[in-house]
Amino acid sequence: MAKLFKTEEQQSSFVGNMLRGIGQVMFQRNGWTGLFFLCGIAWGAYNSGVIEVAWGALVGTFVATLTGYILGLERSDGDSGLWGFNGVLVGCAMMTFLESTPLTWVALIICSALTVWVRLALNNIMKGWRVNSFTFPFVTTTWIFLLASRALHGMPADALPSPHLPGYFDWSVSLGVLDIVEYWLKGIAQVFLIDSWGTGILFLIGLAVSNIWAAIWAAIGSAVALGGAILFGAPAEMISEGLFGFSSVLTAIALGATFYPRSWRSALWAVTGVVICLFVQLATDLWLEPLGLPALTAPFCLTTWIFLLPLLRFDKEQNKIDHSEWHHKNNDVKQQNN
Amino acid sequence: MAKLFKTEEQQSSFVGNMLRGIGQVMFQRNGWTGLFFLCGIAWGAYNSGVIEVAWGALVGTFVATLTGYILGLERSDGDSGLWGFNGVLVGCAMMTFLESTPLTWVALIICSALTVWVRLALNNIMKGWRVNSFTFPFVTTTWIFLLASRALHGMPADALPSPHLPGYFDWSVSLGVLDIVEYWLKGIAQVFLIDSWGTGILFLIGLAVSNIWAAIWAAIGSAVALGGAILFGAPAEMISEGLFGFSSVLTAIALGATFYPRSWRSALWAVTGVVICLFVQLATDLWLEPLGLPALTAPFCLTTWIFLLPLLRFDKEQNKIDHSEWHHKNNDVKQQNN
Amino acid sequence: MAKLFKTEEQQSSFVGNMLRGIGQVMFQRNGWTGLFFLCGIAWGAYNSGVIEVAWGALVGTFVATLTGYILGLERSDGDSGLWGFNGVLVGCAMMTFLESTPLTWVALIICSALTVWVRLALNNIMKGWRVNSFTFPFVTTTWIFLLASRALHGMPADALPSPHLPGYFDWSVSLGVLDIVEYWLKGIAQVFLIDSWGTGILFLIGLAVSNIWAAIWAAIGSAVALGGAILFGAPAEMISEGLFGFSSVLTAIALGATFYPRSWRSALWAVTGVVICLFVQLATDLWLEPLGLPALTAPFCLTTWIFLLPLLRFDKEQNKIDHSEWHHKNNDVKQQNN
Repeated sequence: MAKLFKTEEQQSSFVGNMLRGIGQVMFQRNGWTGLFFLCGIAWGAYNSGVIEVAWGALVGTFVATLTGYILGLERSDGDSGLWGFNGVLVGCAMMTFLESTPLTWVALIICSALTVWVRLALNNIMKGWRVNSFTFPFVTTTWIFLLASRALHGMPADALPSPHLPGYFDWSVSLGVLDIVEYWLKGIAQVFLIDSWGTGILFLIGLAVSNIWAAIWAAIGSAVALGGAILFGAPAEMISEGLFGFSSVLTAIALGATFYPRSWRSALWAVTGVVICLFVQLATDLWLEPLGLPALTAPFCLTTWIFLLPLLRFDKEQNKIDHSEWHHKNNDVKQQNN
Repeated sequence: MAKLFKTEEQQSSFVGNMLRGIGQVMFQRNGWTGLFFLCGIAWGAYNSGVIEVAWGALVGTFVATLTGYILGLERSDGDSGLWGFNGVLVGCAMMTFLESTPLTWVALIICSALTVWVRLALNNIMKGWRVNSFTFPFVTTTWIFLLASRALHGMPADALPSPHLPGYFDWSVSLGVLDIVEYWLKGIAQVFLIDSWGTGILFLIGLAVSNIWAAIWAAIGSAVALGGAILFGAPAEMISEGLFGFSSVLTAIALGATFYPRSWRSALWAVTGVVICLFVQLATDLWLEPLGLPALTAPFCLTTWIFLLPLLRFDKEQNKIDHSEWHHKNNDVKQQNN
Repeated sequence: MAKLFKTEEQQSSFVGNMLRGIGQVMFQRNGWTGLFFLCGIAWGAYNSGVIEVAWGALVGTFVATLTGYILGLERSDGDSGLWGFNGVLVGCAMMTFLESTPLTWVALIICSALTVWVRLALNNIMKGWRVNSFTFPFVTTTWIFLLASRALHGMPADALPSPHLPGYFDWSVSLGVLDIVEYWLKGIAQVFLIDSWGTGILFLIGLAVSNIWAAIWAAIGSAVALGGAILFGAPAEMISEGLFGFSSVLTAIALGATFYPRSWRSALWAVTGVVICLFVQLATDLWLEPLGLPALTAPFCLTTWIFLLPLLRFDKEQNKIDHSEWHHKNNDVKQQNN
């Protein structure tokens, strides 16, 4: 199986593209990373009694990858896993928030396929701004289907939060050392909507396999966000379920280990991004409360755009920076690490 | 009167530009189509006891067309009816949802005029993305005035839905054959906010006069959306009033009979668009419930952008597709059909 | 001190850049204007018993200006006061709506710094559309921190309106001549969130020092908006606190005295803008009610974009108009006036 990821032809195998798609959720063009992520999802879903989340992840990736082939899109994107990474998140999210009925699965298939050309649509808009749409295709399409599900009795919105005006919060959270380690690991696991610290460890290993700096920044991201949330007095439930972690982890990997060459200045920039992400996370949560919608990875997208769109650069090069084609950079990183 | 639409000079008459403006709501650069639409509006408004909706449509088109002349905008746009098509919808919507006071008419005039340069503003933004703003100028300006009307006691928001959090829905709908035909025709009539199946027939005839494929796709669009709504179990009231139809009809005409050359692949693309539009419609409705705002044609705009922005093409030509200048294509279609 | 603003080198002093930053909130690249504005803020804040608003303004400007130096941004922007103008508004807004705790001050510092690169981010997006981001960096970042504050018990959202669905309004307002003068002056003072007619006079003087036409248009803007609000029957509290004025004042200065050469046609365009701003103001207020957020200067940004984005021009020149680099124009205006 190790050979599966070695040569050019094998890199364009369907299964390889699916696994790299799962890896690309955290910017890793690496099938082994994807496999670790998938194990983490299955483990967490099984333990939480929602194994359909793991099936959703698989079906979502499969459908999205297949859609790329059917539409005849640029193969290099598919081989980099860029067709599937939104689909896997759609699968996790729809199976987390909706009841698993036949029509929900039909909707999951439609929504996963949709992400593939919504990604092209958003990248068309954002190319002129020199940034990429990240996981925002997943966010927008899933919001559409989750909102619609409330009114459709064929796909009941069982586990969506109920719509309410922003109100009172519970701020009493237990802060033992073991608690904090658990919250920190859950923050990493929540990237795929999994509420399990074991999954967090599997995700860290998966990242380290591809790029040790990505793993380090994921750890930093979740830790800084957790510290900030405790310092500013964030709601207890959000802290204990790791809900401050997932967007911060993605922001940290993006700013710390993907878009900038390593330096003290870019590291400081990435940490600032994680701090801002904390406030963006809460703002997005409260903005969506009257609709009863989850923030998904919108806070990550918003924060990372805020830090990439100024097109600042921290090295001495003179040419204009371009953040729109990130998979080529990943490609290079991967070659150094494998 | 038949001569009115024949020669170049007559094409630029004020009344002709108004009628073509009404036709352009469904992408038809054809004065006769506009006349049929106007009859359909008047018929439906009269039967529903809200004749001021028809007056609103006339005044809105008149003001918007006049504004184009006053601002000295490009004449080819005016001759294609592109000044007036947002205005006619503003007139229908404001007279549907607001009480007909003198100040409401003043606001209607301001809002209709405003659509003309909001269209230029949005097209300036979207030109780089190679798409057009469609009826979104109508949507944004009317949302502004409807929202404001709640707080203005000079233009009372009589018939606006009351703001509420997304809650429970009634799903019991009668599905006899005649019922379904009625819902299907109402879906077409609701493009101009008319709740009358007779109007739906007049609109279909108006479309067929200009372009038989536009009529066919309008029929398909409303039918597919209705079928999808019934299958997924949508709220009864929305089905029976044709509220799933109007955005789907516009999406179907746009994707099936306007922006792509006819082929099996583009037809499949258009049907997919109509299916997605169903979910976008519900999502928009629920998103706006806390504000008590109607979705207007926003679901059509959003869905059609999602399907045009990827810039996919289904023929063999190599040059890049550009969806931003649709009236020229309409122009060609018209010449083939007249 | 008069010398402080005269020569090139002195123009790039830190304090000068801060004062010009305060002046740029109303498009004036003039340190004396900034000083008058600061006096107005201090006077109004002291009289209303919220002197921390004045301190917030100072700290916000200082942090934002410092951030520009630290990031090594283009010096001509800093010398024109374009680093600090969002920061001063952040300071006023956060100290108006939040309790003054240590963590609130930390958040104020973070948020003020953030505006500096959010401005670069938004200008990167908007440059292609030939417009500028105005005070929208202040609006977006402050919305994020105000929303988040509801859930953070370290920075309590004391004075934010409570979230509610759009409902009933009180329309009984006293309209004596002195009342109306007071509302009119408060409308100008509210640009910096100050509810004091004396501050309005200081702001008018500050404007006149730099550009008499800016002062005249500020006066017209507040007056027209007030008249429109009374005519259409707007809520009493909004009229009496000058809440229709601030965005209209900014819109009037932008359209009447900044982006177009003076002419009857551009004056008419500016007045139309002020009228539209009235409805945009109310729409924004109602849109934000379920979140309990203030509109800040969003209505000004939206309205002015609507009137600049069509790229219409009212003189005889043939070259394409570009509204994205407004500080150079201000620069010229300043040289004529000083």
